[in-house]
Amino acid sequence: MTAVCPSPHHEDDVVLLGHGAGGRLTAELLDALVLPALDGQSGPLEDAALLPGHPDLVVSTDSFVVSPLFFPGGDIGSLAVNGTVNDLAMRGARPIALSVALVVEEGLPLAQLRAVVESMGKAAREAGVPVVTGDTKVVGRGAADRVFVTTTGVGQRRLGLRPSAALARPGDAVLLSGPIGLHGTTVLSTREGLGFESDIASDSRPLHGLVAALGPLGEQVHTLRDPTRGGLAAALNEIARDSRIAVEIDEDAVPVPRAVAAACDLLGLDPLVVANEGCLVAFVAQEAADAALTALRSRPEGRDAVRIGEVSADGPAGRVVLRTLVGARRVVDLPIGELLPRIC
Amino acid sequence: MTAVCPSPHHEDDVVLLGHGAGGRLTAELLDALVLPALDGQSGPLEDAALLPGHPDLVVSTDSFVVSPLFFPGGDIGSLAVNGTVNDLAMRGARPIALSVALVVEEGLPLAQLRAVVESMGKAAREAGVPVVTGDTKVVGRGAADRVFVTTTGVGQRRLGLRPSAALARPGDAVLLSGPIGLHGTTVLSTREGLGFESDIASDSRPLHGLVAALGPLGEQVHTLRDPTRGGLAAALNEIARDSRIAVEIDEDAVPVPRAVAAACDLLGLDPLVVANEGCLVAFVAQEAADAALTALRSRPEGRDAVRIGEVSADGPAGRVVLRTLVGARRVVDLPIGELLPRIC
Repeated sequence: MTAVCPSPHHEDDVVLLGHGAGGRLTAELLDALVLPALDGQSGPLEDAALLPGHPDLVVSTDSFVVSPLFFPGGDIGSLAVNGTVNDLAMRGARPIALSVALVVEEGLPLAQLRAVVESMGKAAREAGVPVVTGDTKVVGRGAADRVFVTTTGVGQRRLGLRPSAALARPGDAVLLSGPIGLHGTTVLSTREGLGFESDIASDSRPLHGLVAALGPLGEQVHTLRDPTRGGLAAALNEIARDSRIAVEIDEDAVPVPRAVAAACDLLGLDPLVVANEGCLVAFVAQEAADAALTALRSRPEGRDAVRIGEVSADGPAGRVVLRTLVGARRVVDLPIGELLPRIC
Repeated sequence: MTAVCPSPHHEDDVVLLGHGAGGRLTAELLDALVLPALDGQSGPLEDAALLPGHPDLVVSTDSFVVSPLFFPGGDIGSLAVNGTVNDLAMRGARPIALSVALVVEEGLPLAQLRAVVESMGKAAREAGVPVVTGDTKVVGRGAADRVFVTTTGVGQRRLGLRPSAALARPGDAVLLSGPIGLHGTTVLSTREGLGFESDIASDSRPLHGLVAALGPLGEQVHTLRDPTRGGLAAALNEIARDSRIAVEIDEDAVPVPRAVAAACDLLGLDPLVVANEGCLVAFVAQEAADAALTALRSRPEGRDAVRIGEVSADGPAGRVVLRTLVGARRVVDLPIGELLPRIC
């Protein structure tokens, strides 16, 4: 892997859109620049961190810069709340408090700001989590694009659930709670006026209910991840890397809605790299796979849950392989850079 | 007070710079739009909120949009860390974890991003708090101004310290830990090239050590606040409002460095409304005032601590009065709008 971050010899290097895309450039930026400066550890990169001294509490933060602000199935407000609720849920936690920080561009219609904030309030009530504190900054016209939202959440872990990106094991079943590609294609189609947005909507929604349904399986649930930036391809690659295992999935088992497939065909995108905001991947012990699928399907947001593959017994660590419809095998890489900017 | 936020009849109202200035417009935006949507309560507005179900833990969040990114005495990175550490400290808490979310403009030199992140790491180490999680988003050129930083902190309250903006009482002594006006005038002078920046520097620094020094005074420490946006005037007005008390301070007791006074003269600013990032106001029981001053002065960052006034026994609730050098009395109002944009 080539380092793209500046040594003292590359002081003219600049930030690229791809550095925020959740793919290989993002990983390199983190490894070469951010984590060393902040005394962070390289991997496993979890969706939420344990709170020091409080092993049952986790904390997660995300900035949301999606454009447009409003799209079928959601808006930047509900997306910010659901996204942080889901990052907590992926560590087996229910959300107990959210904070909200807004950076607003001067001149934003107050009616739009009101709509965003009211959507946040509604999403928080639906997820059962209070917004306990916040901040609002205003910058001049042209210094930001309308509004950016940063949500931080604190969550309480459920008794027994201790999933981590580093805990997937050979033999694990790989489950997916619903169809992929809806969020990314909806936002892109809305922004660019491609017309697909009349047929599809973002899947943005809270996933902690699904995680609660998995609770009785306890430590048989090894890894949970919501495949947001970088899509299913990034999520599986990160888990394969952090757990040092190889993953194999079946192309025909991965549910891709017809309109998502059509949009991806037009745009030359692989649905596996398109962001999702309302499904999760679960790596569970082989013997718990059926019970986990039943638990996921017991809730509306997991109705279409399927098994898409498994952790191979002896594949090379870090590799993700797709078994295609025609029986071929192809390696699924971590996406390199930015295919879909400002999708979340 | 006239509402400035839109009823359905004012859909053409827009966000103004003053809505983010920490003064009256900010308060109106919060009361009329943000808090109702998020089911928040109107006042007391604290620097940090209690974590539901965990009465010893507090959480605070702030976005930082300061321009320029680097200025004498600090930069956006150290400012973001210290600012959140201080918001936790004002609730009597020591910081136990920080999260960091970056929104970066495409094209930012990686060397600048590196400098900001390294400054955050250094400030976090100096404050003794780990950065446990983070997020990085990149937006296209022109969609943000270089980099915005949102820090969220979780803090553990010290045994016995339970300060709140609502707990100031008649007879309390009003203490100030150091001189005012340095941060705001330094940033403004640097941005505009006014020349004062060679004589002054931001006071940005962590204040939890000062709060620790006040720890032995326990519940005699009624209220702590760091006078950031809106300056000392906003801090005292918020405390007077939330505690339903009247505050009187002496103009000649408030330390204003010579260069700050000169810059304020040139700019037509009242030093009382200029943002600070390294001092605090403490309302303490009359009988604990001397001990509190001694405690503050025991640390370098409180060396210049002074008593600036008191809570009057019978003044009208919510009023802040300045006794001037010539013996007059003038009301100190909550600043209305934006005097110093993008100062933090």
